[in-house]
Amino acid sequence: MTINKTRMALAAGALGIATGMSAAEAESDVEDLQGLLSTYEAALNASDTPTIVSLYTPNGVFMPQHSPSQVGVSAVRAAYEHVFDAIKLNIEFHIEEIVQVSPEWAFARTNSVGTVTVLAAGITAPEANQELFIFHKGASGQWKIARYAFSTINPPHGQ
Amino acid sequence: MTINKTRMALAAGALGIATGMSAAEAESDVEDLQGLLSTYEAALNASDTPTIVSLYTPNGVFMPQHSPSQVGVSAVRAAYEHVFDAIKLNIEFHIEEIVQVSPEWAFARTNSVGTVTVLAAGITAPEANQELFIFHKGASGQWKIARYAFSTINPPHGQ
Repeated sequence: MTINKTRMALAAGALGIATGMSAAEAESDVEDLQGLLSTYEAALNASDTPTIVSLYTPNGVFMPQHSPSQVGVSAVRAAYEHVFDAIKLNIEFHIEEIVQVSPEWAFARTNSVGTVTVLAAGITAPEANQELFIFHKGASGQWKIARYAFSTINPPHGQ
Repeated sequence: MTINKTRMALAAGALGIATGMSAAEAESDVEDLQGLLSTYEAALNASDTPTIVSLYTPNGVFMPQHSPSQVGVSAVRAAYEHVFDAIKLNIEFHIEEIVQVSPEWAFARTNSVGTVTVLAAGITAPEANQELFIFHKGASGQWKIARYAFSTINPPHGQ
């Protein structure tokens, strides 16, 4: 995982001004969110559905390309199981920005590049996506994925 | 445009509890955001780039499928011009949820269905997407689109 450091520092500073949180509090939250994204990246590459599901809020929503939005943890689990039955990922995330907008809410924009192997065919192809995450810190004090959408940045097949 | 009324009411109520905003303030913001989404829908169907650009924050990010993320209003403008040179949309948005997370930040999840006409080929096909919007209310007091990602919910071609 790689990180755009300049934007991280700006985001943490701006939040302090906006909400009265201390810079240290905001920086700690950004570090927690980097950790969450790092765990998500590793779990994706390990096809590890239980870990991924543990990163979502109970009413979290997963919005994968080529599928209706999956609302709630049961639907999210089934969707990742379906994905990992079909493909094996080997990707790295680059964090473009993490923006905390309140003590309990934040969002992140990332890009991911690597390869996807279609298991049935045994074919590996390059993969490049953009991702938009919305995070919520609940009563547990842990940041979780509340909403998550992604799409390919590659042109359509044949173009 | 259609709206999931139950979720709108819940979102406005929850925000009052979370931020100390009055229910009336939160409801007014949700109405403004519904208006923004309605304007966006109409402008998309009219291929109206200037109106769409006016709905974004200056540093807004548009994350269309099959394209790298477009960061900042100049890139956003060029991307919509490129889209409207190629296709004509006739779609309707259904708002699944609008969630205001602070006085200045909110997000919405929508689905859109309708048709897309590829102008060069003159071929019209069904279109079905899911969208994730992040909104910011700046110093002007107007809600704008700060981040916006979408992807198709249809299976890949040939599946």
